[in-house]
Amino acid sequence: MKLFDMTGAPNPRRVRVFLAEKGIDIEKVQVDIMEGENLQSDYLSINPRGVLPTLQLDDGTIIDETTAICRYFEETTPSPALYGQDAKSKALIESWLRQIESDCFTPTADVLRNSNSVFENRSIPGTNNTPQIPALSDRGTDRVLAFYSRLNKHLANSQFLVGNAFSMADITAMCTIDFAEYVGIAVPADLSNLSKWREKVNSRPSAQA
Amino acid sequence: MKLFDMTGAPNPRRVRVFLAEKGIDIEKVQVDIMEGENLQSDYLSINPRGVLPTLQLDDGTIIDETTAICRYFEETTPSPALYGQDAKSKALIESWLRQIESDCFTPTADVLRNSNSVFENRSIPGTNNTPQIPALSDRGTDRVLAFYSRLNKHLANSQFLVGNAFSMADITAMCTIDFAEYVGIAVPADLSNLSKWREKVNSRPSAQA
Repeated sequence: MKLFDMTGAPNPRRVRVFLAEKGIDIEKVQVDIMEGENLQSDYLSINPRGVLPTLQLDDGTIIDETTAICRYFEETTPSPALYGQDAKSKALIESWLRQIESDCFTPTADVLRNSNSVFENRSIPGTNNTPQIPALSDRGTDRVLAFYSRLNKHLANSQFLVGNAFSMADITAMCTIDFAEYVGIAVPADLSNLSKWREKVNSRPSAQA
Repeated sequence: MKLFDMTGAPNPRRVRVFLAEKGIDIEKVQVDIMEGENLQSDYLSINPRGVLPTLQLDDGTIIDETTAICRYFEETTPSPALYGQDAKSKALIESWLRQIESDCFTPTADVLRNSNSVFENRSIPGTNNTPQIPALSDRGTDRVLAFYSRLNKHLANSQFLVGNAFSMADITAMCTIDFAEYVGIAVPADLSNLSKWREKVNSRPSAQA
């Protein structure tokens, strides 16, 4: 089994943190997205979509999409549960996961992919050759800040994103907010609940994975 | 328990088809997105994000996001399994689900939300008041057609999206492609595997839910 990975990219990091929380160690192969290695024939022969992360099972099956890879390991190594333990917590974790992705990850990626010349004609991950849309970059920061405000309110009454258990929602929020910081969007100083939660999750050993 | 729903909108339909496959019947309350009812105070007092579908549990808990609602019912009513039965099928269903959403649903919604005057300042679902970006509409159709071509190839060797079992991936693809047709993006006539699969899934009783 092999994970095609890129240190420094936010989605591969989500998988690495998830694996660290589960205590799973697997072979990792680095593929450099900034250098376009994911769009070269070596990698496309493994994953024709040209996206990362990708998990290759021992039987050759290719599984891409971050959450698909993590759900594979949630089944094979159920403890600690990172997608919830009952119907309600599973639903709320999935809901927060989707909200982080749509309201924070996507606008952050919109900023990076539609303003940085490295991503010219690569405004959407993969092999689709899509031109940049500067207006997407322009609106991204406001959307992220609106999400931070909402999340800060939510964290006033909750130790983690869903109750008292660290979950895939926390992993995704941590990796996304660190990604936004890298892109130049800082967490406003007055959002103290959010800042405290960030310190807490980033101090877990898994955060260094 | 109550589902806030809109007949005719693609995400609420995904939930209704999912419930029909499970044989679950719950109270439904109609909220008209085209008329902006989802952004009025009555609905915002239930779900401040202003998005649909939303599930309200008997204890008052609000669960939004289509896949979160469906995963709730996958836990409470496990049979028939619609998110897979083992680690590999669960991962592959999640992967296809994400691919349909990112490469087909999002560009279809981009076309509708960035070209139709009903969605002026509502280019993103919910309360965020986001102006339209016409370039997003322009690129949407090409992205959908590229996905159709990929899906057609995949269906040459697969009865359903993931192997021989109908799943949430099929529900999502069916609702998304019907949505794209409504928006004006037809499935090209030469994609016969895709057309046969569409007939098959649309002839299930659940498709009428």
